[in-house]
Amino acid sequence: MNGNRQWILRARPEGAVGPAHFEIRTVARPQPGPGEVLVRHLYLLVPPSMRLWMDARDSYLPAQPLGEVMMGITLGVVEASNVPALPVGTFVNGMGGCQEWAVAAPDQLAVVAPHAAIPLAAYRSVLDVQGLTAYAGLTEIGRPKAGETLVVTAAAGSVGSMVCQIGRELGLHVVGIAGGAEKCAWLRDTCGVEAIDYKADDVAARLDTLCPRGIDIVFENVGGPVMALLLERLNRHARVALCGLVASYNGAGGDLPASALMRLVIQSARVEGFLVRDHLDRYADVIARLQDWVLDGRLHYQLDVLDGGLEQLAPALGRLFRGENRGVQLLRLGEENTR
Amino acid sequence: MNGNRQWILRARPEGAVGPAHFEIRTVARPQPGPGEVLVRHLYLLVPPSMRLWMDARDSYLPAQPLGEVMMGITLGVVEASNVPALPVGTFVNGMGGCQEWAVAAPDQLAVVAPHAAIPLAAYRSVLDVQGLTAYAGLTEIGRPKAGETLVVTAAAGSVGSMVCQIGRELGLHVVGIAGGAEKCAWLRDTCGVEAIDYKADDVAARLDTLCPRGIDIVFENVGGPVMALLLERLNRHARVALCGLVASYNGAGGDLPASALMRLVIQSARVEGFLVRDHLDRYADVIARLQDWVLDGRLHYQLDVLDGGLEQLAPALGRLFRGENRGVQLLRLGEENTR
Repeated sequence: MNGNRQWILRARPEGAVGPAHFEIRTVARPQPGPGEVLVRHLYLLVPPSMRLWMDARDSYLPAQPLGEVMMGITLGVVEASNVPALPVGTFVNGMGGCQEWAVAAPDQLAVVAPHAAIPLAAYRSVLDVQGLTAYAGLTEIGRPKAGETLVVTAAAGSVGSMVCQIGRELGLHVVGIAGGAEKCAWLRDTCGVEAIDYKADDVAARLDTLCPRGIDIVFENVGGPVMALLLERLNRHARVALCGLVASYNGAGGDLPASALMRLVIQSARVEGFLVRDHLDRYADVIARLQDWVLDGRLHYQLDVLDGGLEQLAPALGRLFRGENRGVQLLRLGEENTR
Repeated sequence: MNGNRQWILRARPEGAVGPAHFEIRTVARPQPGPGEVLVRHLYLLVPPSMRLWMDARDSYLPAQPLGEVMMGITLGVVEASNVPALPVGTFVNGMGGCQEWAVAAPDQLAVVAPHAAIPLAAYRSVLDVQGLTAYAGLTEIGRPKAGETLVVTAAAGSVGSMVCQIGRELGLHVVGIAGGAEKCAWLRDTCGVEAIDYKADDVAARLDTLCPRGIDIVFENVGGPVMALLLERLNRHARVALCGLVASYNGAGGDLPASALMRLVIQSARVEGFLVRDHLDRYADVIARLQDWVLDGRLHYQLDVLDGGLEQLAPALGRLFRGENRGVQLLRLGEENTR
């Protein structure tokens, strides 16, 4: 009745996250102190990088400690408040952790003001740091010029599909690489870009067909053999925006052959990593622009919200790494009140 | 008497270049036509990338055709001239090929005006494109700020040793990685930088000791496992100037693990390839500056000139890839006249 269910990391996985690595426990629901609010979590974003946080080594975040509530990217609603600026009913984004309830101070939260025509969960995914990751990575690191060729990996994913469509809006020739006919059809028919099915197509041959003038920009989410094929086709002064290397997060490869690296020398090209936190100064502008594009039908996305609570976290990660998700992977942790 | 010995690529090597891959033949010495000069070659530069030119695939130069005179970076002297601006006795740089004599037009040659106190061969190596490679790569790609930490691989080599010393002059904390105690002693005692012997030292432990504030700039000539160790230690917004990947030129590895690439994401760092040809507009300024530094004793180099003519080309390449050279590897193709 007054409980709080929490997902605790108990052991560090080597590959996929399974029952041996976590425990779900119920503790007393916390109470907000002075200057704090109590947040009921509605959505938990499940990005592939969550698997990376479980490793012993620090990633772009400090390593998740064992025995503690797993870090998590949350959207919730204020249910009790000692903060006048955050009254009960306010929607808030935070790093609230993999649990149903959390107490937080205002500087740990960002108010969400959703448009009535857009699902709330979009504001903790494509109209949030994922959208900014896509926009900032493509524009700041990729430095696109209209008419150039952009190739995007994990193109049907939450970030990738935004990159594809932003690239299309910026006048680029866009090719997305995704796994399976359904995702590729969505990229072609809904997102309006070319698509390669890495599970079924001869990727090298399709790249040669779809990128007859070579590749100027890569937005790389995956790594591994496909990344090598992309580097082999880079044009002079090409830019590779390195957003992630999902192929390696489960400890399953993703190495890059020297011959592919050598193309960077021969083409005076570069691979540049980036984190969205370097671009937070553009958050308000970019999200406002992306929301406009959503409202006028230029920007499409898919929300893949799993019901079933915290029990679904490990399965959700499994879906991501097997490519079974359809768009943004989220867990529903609580029911929305009527807006 | 009037012959011209030439080194012909007969078969493409898989690994090291051996007797099965080439032929040395003697043909008639060419005669200059109108608007041409006859050049007698004195020095042939032997850079590691020469091995790369022998592959079937184009590198930054078109692949060397089989059955033709091997491409070569030459310094020679005009012995017959139909060009008033290039009188007999003029020293000239060119891509004259692996042969003793060549006919060339003025637009294929650059006049060399050596300082009396500097060996002529330096003007086809450290005071030529190798020096420009070092200077432009470090300054344009590495974008150094005084006080930052620079690590250089193949640090005792022709380009690497220039990078080390230029970095020292620019106020960087410089660590060079080279193979063997003798090279490391030279780096420490003559070039004035820290040194790690990758053949004898625990490279990771030495890097941690010598780079206590992490690594801001890498000047990478080699690739492979040491490159991975360097990427693991990059600071935020670090720059890796990718000059070459010698570890892979003989087909012997040099792959980069995904964990090392992931550091580029986590640190918002980049790997950028470059070619000296992109920076030729700075040639005159940079070479004048480097010559000044040589003359006032701030910049040191070693010339490793092999006698014995074209027969020594394959052995010279072998020396390079085994790390047996001492500084710039050159072949003497003809005797200098007294200057």
